[in-house]
Amino acid sequence: MPKAIVLLSGGLDSATCLAYAKVRGFELYALTFSYGQRHQSELAASRRIAQHFQVTEQKIVEMNYLSELRGSSLTDKGQSIPRPNQTNQIPSTYVPARNTIFLSHALAWAEVLQCQHIFIGCSQVDYSGYPDCRKPFIETFNILANQATKLASEGFPIQIHAPLIDKSKAETIELGHELGVDYKMTVSCYQANEQGLACGQCESCYLRQKGFQEANLTDETRYHH
Amino acid sequence: MPKAIVLLSGGLDSATCLAYAKVRGFELYALTFSYGQRHQSELAASRRIAQHFQVTEQKIVEMNYLSELRGSSLTDKGQSIPRPNQTNQIPSTYVPARNTIFLSHALAWAEVLQCQHIFIGCSQVDYSGYPDCRKPFIETFNILANQATKLASEGFPIQIHAPLIDKSKAETIELGHELGVDYKMTVSCYQANEQGLACGQCESCYLRQKGFQEANLTDETRYHH
Repeated sequence: MPKAIVLLSGGLDSATCLAYAKVRGFELYALTFSYGQRHQSELAASRRIAQHFQVTEQKIVEMNYLSELRGSSLTDKGQSIPRPNQTNQIPSTYVPARNTIFLSHALAWAEVLQCQHIFIGCSQVDYSGYPDCRKPFIETFNILANQATKLASEGFPIQIHAPLIDKSKAETIELGHELGVDYKMTVSCYQANEQGLACGQCESCYLRQKGFQEANLTDETRYHH
Repeated sequence: MPKAIVLLSGGLDSATCLAYAKVRGFELYALTFSYGQRHQSELAASRRIAQHFQVTEQKIVEMNYLSELRGSSLTDKGQSIPRPNQTNQIPSTYVPARNTIFLSHALAWAEVLQCQHIFIGCSQVDYSGYPDCRKPFIETFNILANQATKLASEGFPIQIHAPLIDKSKAETIELGHELGVDYKMTVSCYQANEQGLACGQCESCYLRQKGFQEANLTDETRYHH
């Protein structure tokens, strides 16, 4: 079985992405980051999901750097989480260079594992406008991956897979539903509490609710008020 | 003064790069990584250099991830440091995805600082064949930086500067010499001891010695045998 590293946050998209890679026949390696995100229950969710899908290994990388930078309302408790975005502006929940950093870490592990496949569950449809969730970013990172690494230089090119990139949240949920993903395991809310209960008010909650409605499926997410 | 983030290892190239950015009129922010490299005296060197060039701030990022991966003889003491490379193969001192990871961290800090300039002191001339030291890699990362970030999306493009990319080691040393870099402050050796004394036998020592010889300048590096 070819190996795949899957970026696994503990949210809905990355869980779907993991299930997708599994059904495609990859041996799974999950890469998760603890970067001072408010919703630490996301990490517990990632562990449950990794276990459920029987990944060969999950690495949880401690990354204080991103929280110390205080560049995002997602990592800086001095800022509040905004309501769903009504503008064209990139919201304060954007974490500087997050996906570039995450993918670059995946690249290093890929070299050590001799793994040519990296999966990321980002989408440019029902999303918050984060620039590092768009197709051109993924495509350029793929070019970079093959210029940057010993693995590719030695004849083993690397492929960045973003299977959800053009899917709406509803389409992602439908896919995951077909693949048997139990979305109870996942946490989307930007300010979920320690038990994983959601706020119901942030953009991430909004996109999730909208996705389940459009997919005509029931979400068992519980809310703390 | 425009701001610049300079990747600063404590070696000869990055010290030259810092001096170059300073003379070009940038306000300096130095970014250094502690990633389990054998030559920890490199970190002490980076502090001396940062202080000497009066950087506004130096961040030293703790990154255990790269050492835990054990993907390089530079971070894994179970492997020995090879003699200078006589082949076309990428030597074991290559650290998986190192420059991609370092530049991605610089990108995050750049967004927080609203800084549009990132300097990296890599060269594709007298080097060890590391793929992430070559011009196409730098060019692609520059494209990526502008696709990936909020800063660029909001009209502030980012420029990756690699002023040494086409310089031989001798040319770099000549440039630094003109700029008044005191190379005594720098550590190149892959296995320098705690006092910063060099082995004189690794590829990095070899390239440094060759560079000083070709530049017809005296290197005051001290060796431990």
